Amino acid sequence: MDLNSDLGEGFGIWRLGDDDALLAIVTSANVACGFHAGDPTTMRRVSSAAGELGVRVGAQVSYRDLAGFGRRRIDVPPGELEDELRYQIGALSAFGPVSYVKPHGALYNTAATDEAHASAVVAAARPSGLPVLCQPGSALARLATDAGLRVVTEGFIDRGYLPDGRLVPRNSPDALVTDVDTVVARAVRMAVDGVVKAVDGSVVPMPVESLCVHGDTPGAVTMAAAVRAGLLAAGITLAPFC
Amino acid sequence: MDLNSDLGEGFGIWRLGDDDALLAIVTSANVACGFHAGDPTTMRRVSSAAGELGVRVGAQVSYRDLAGFGRRRIDVPPGELEDELRYQIGALSAFGPVSYVKPHGALYNTAATDEAHASAVVAAARPSGLPVLCQPGSALARLATDAGLRVVTEGFIDRGYLPDGRLVPRNSPDALVTDVDTVVARAVRMAVDGVVKAVDGSVVPMPVESLCVHGDTPGAVTMAAAVRAGLLAAGITLAPFC
Amino acid sequence: MDLNSDLGEGFGIWRLGDDDALLAIVTSANVACGFHAGDPTTMRRVSSAAGELGVRVGAQVSYRDLAGFGRRRIDVPPGELEDELRYQIGALSAFGPVSYVKPHGALYNTAATDEAHASAVVAAARPSGLPVLCQPGSALARLATDAGLRVVTEGFIDRGYLPDGRLVPRNSPDALVTDVDTVVARAVRMAVDGVVKAVDGSVVPMPVESLCVHGDTPGAVTMAAAVRAGLLAAGITLAPFC
Amino acid sequence: MDLNSDLGEGFGIWRLGDDDALLAIVTSANVACGFHAGDPTTMRRVSSAAGELGVRVGAQVSYRDLAGFGRRRIDVPPGELEDELRYQIGALSAFGPVSYVKPHGALYNTAATDEAHASAVVAAARPSGLPVLCQPGSALARLATDAGLRVVTEGFIDRGYLPDGRLVPRNSPDALVTDVDTVVARAVRMAVDGVVKAVDGSVVPMPVESLCVHGDTPGAVTMAAAVRAGLLAAGITLAPFC
Repeated sequence: MDLNSDLGEGFGIWRLGDDDALLAIVTSANVACGFHAGDPTTMRRVSSAAGELGVRVGAQVSYRDLAGFGRRRIDVPPGELEDELRYQIGALSAFGPVSYVKPHGALYNTAATDEAHASAVVAAARPSGLPVLCQPGSALARLATDAGLRVVTEGFIDRGYLPDGRLVPRNSPDALVTDVDTVVARAVRMAVDGVVKAVDGSVVPMPVESLCVHGDTPGAVTMAAAVRAGLLAAGITLAPFC
Repeated sequence: MDLNSDLGEGFGIWRLGDDDALLAIVTSANVACGFHAGDPTTMRRVSSAAGELGVRVGAQVSYRDLAGFGRRRIDVPPGELEDELRYQIGALSAFGPVSYVKPHGALYNTAATDEAHASAVVAAARPSGLPVLCQPGSALARLATDAGLRVVTEGFIDRGYLPDGRLVPRNSPDALVTDVDTVVARAVRMAVDGVVKAVDGSVVPMPVESLCVHGDTPGAVTMAAAVRAGLLAAGITLAPFC
Repeated sequence: MDLNSDLGEGFGIWRLGDDDALLAIVTSANVACGFHAGDPTTMRRVSSAAGELGVRVGAQVSYRDLAGFGRRRIDVPPGELEDELRYQIGALSAFGPVSYVKPHGALYNTAATDEAHASAVVAAARPSGLPVLCQPGSALARLATDAGLRVVTEGFIDRGYLPDGRLVPRNSPDALVTDVDTVVARAVRMAVDGVVKAVDGSVVPMPVESLCVHGDTPGAVTMAAAVRAGLLAAGITLAPFC
Repeated sequence: MDLNSDLGEGFGIWRLGDDDALLAIVTSANVACGFHAGDPTTMRRVSSAAGELGVRVGAQVSYRDLAGFGRRRIDVPPGELEDELRYQIGALSAFGPVSYVKPHGALYNTAATDEAHASAVVAAARPSGLPVLCQPGSALARLATDAGLRVVTEGFIDRGYLPDGRLVPRNSPDALVTDVDTVVARAVRMAVDGVVKAVDGSVVPMPVESLCVHGDTPGAVTMAAAVRAGLLAAGITLAPFC
């Protein structure tokens, strides 16, 4: 099983999350490429540290939106979006090998349902044949598969799931799972059995190749470390998906 | 002899110069990489058109300065500057092969004399072993040579030269040569004899591998075309330096 | 009748349209405030020139989007949007009196139908009590009226209208009116009779206080000048609406 | 005596320092205006909170340099710099009354010695007649005085001073004073006697109207609070200088 997390999401003087702590936990690092976060020096440092630890680096591509941290959908024409994403992937490649692409924030959510923006992500990944890390069942997963790209699906161990496999909307009280033991148990179950318990108690297939952990708060790092320890204790091998 | 020019220097809706006209004239295109100009879609278009015409593409790297078009020196620490330049080179690489590096504007001028910023350019070019296009006698030329990089020197056919081979400062009345015939004659003489006539009438060695032409005004394109025609008429072969 | 146009839409080295030509034609100048275009020096120059000519200056506020010239809708939370718009109005105020607010590009279109973003425009205009220049029948016009702001409606003399008073969508063949004489005649009719002929031949009420002219191409400036001359020849007084 | 500090120096998702803690300590808040830090929503929040607490708001103006936090000198032409600073002052004015101007980072240091950039700060403050907060003996202090602006000088309680009243350069071991008691004692002595002990033990006149405290680390906030308490315990009245 692969563990992935967003890294390098500071900009200039500003920091977000503890990159060093997370690099000791994850097997794949989604590195910000300068459009929602990530200055070149941070990109170099994280890429270099990841390389030394055997952590794979993926391009965490985004809408051009430093002011909004890439969390606002932008109606950019798909052709321009493709070019912006290729630009980001190329820029990150300057600092070490890039092993996959994962869209960030509003682009992640938009590409889950919007075929035009999902196609732009696929088109940006295609010249280099990079795998795409995304949600199972998303438009992006489908279009990337159609284009012959490897699709790596990920599970969210601290998010509630609906019986149909979609995430509980964030404004719902069941959206987040915050108890560490529960989160670890869900991670182990996804990894061992490929299922997750939905909010109605039903058991939903969730055959993912990667689990997403967060690191933007001290509590998040603690939980990510507990998930890693729990998976190892359950006998699961942690390794990059590529 | 190589003819180089700055291209792709628009940004978003804004255009600067006539990229298509220049691509039919030059053999090397210095393509802006997004820090002083150059949006990703323009970078893709120019790279693609250059590739079809056999024009080589170089990374025209710059300080981070869209508001000032890269014409203001910024006291960025050399390590950060190196990372910013690598970022730009990587980004351009996403759209096609990058054959060389040429600093833009204030960075060009600063790297001609400032060893710290010249070293940052060298360090950024080194991982990919790219040639550096620069002024003969500059700090950048010397440091790039020391680092084992190929240095390609360029001549300015429409600028006055001092007897010691340096350019006449821009605020001097002799700074610019504007007569088309004179410019063409200077271009031919640099190409054939490797010399240029200085403002005091002396003949100065100027053994350059590339001539720089401009294209940001209609008159500039006309002059660039005349230079190309004059060089061909003089029996000089025009070809990329790499 | 007022004539308004977008001005100051360059950025740094890049120019768009002929500000000086337009300032001799219009009575109200919608000046870009730095978020989609408009650097501080351009803002100062246009504000100063407008002041000398008796042309009123309005804040042409926009989404934060230099790369897309403000033409892409951004899903910015309304509270943040309000703050961004106030910021722009304040910035322009540094260079001279600001007499009204007009949203630009995607924000103009969004605020015509989206109550959340229209409310943000209203909230931004409210502290200074500035009039809002917008489309008749728009959500923005309604909400600004409700908030006690003066609403100044504008007509588009070179756009086709539907029988219900809305604009013909841009992808339709009837979207644009390009014949200069026809455009002048439509301008005079809007100014004298407060009506416009729709694409189906019906005559639609269009009681506007301002007419919008464009200036981003040489042809556009010629047309704007013809409209001004035609209105004056028809005995219409041209004056700012405020 | 006035206590001033830099506030509102986050941008978007990123935070720097504890604005709320500092607002309870200082009497003047130097609020970032968007060029080195400071998004519009942060500017509104800090301005509003300062207003409720009786803390005066000053425009902390900067070079255009989000990536470098305004810490890199930029060779911007003085006329353009003046316009950029007026833009920032105007933008902050949208959120409440602006009572003074203080340059930030590299601009602060440059304006201390460089007359061209100091003049740009003076020219930007002049239309609104705002006081300028700066270092005693600086070019900025002199030129602002010459222009008829009120100059408010500030002391650095945690920095070493040379016998001539200048600061010890940052790369020197005596550059910083880190012991809280010593810093408090220096603050009291500057406030009561208008002097500071220099690194050679001599006592230097330092008749300042404001003391600068920092808040970008937890330790800094603790020290700032200790300084405030120490000044009050010494019977000094803390109040805005304007």
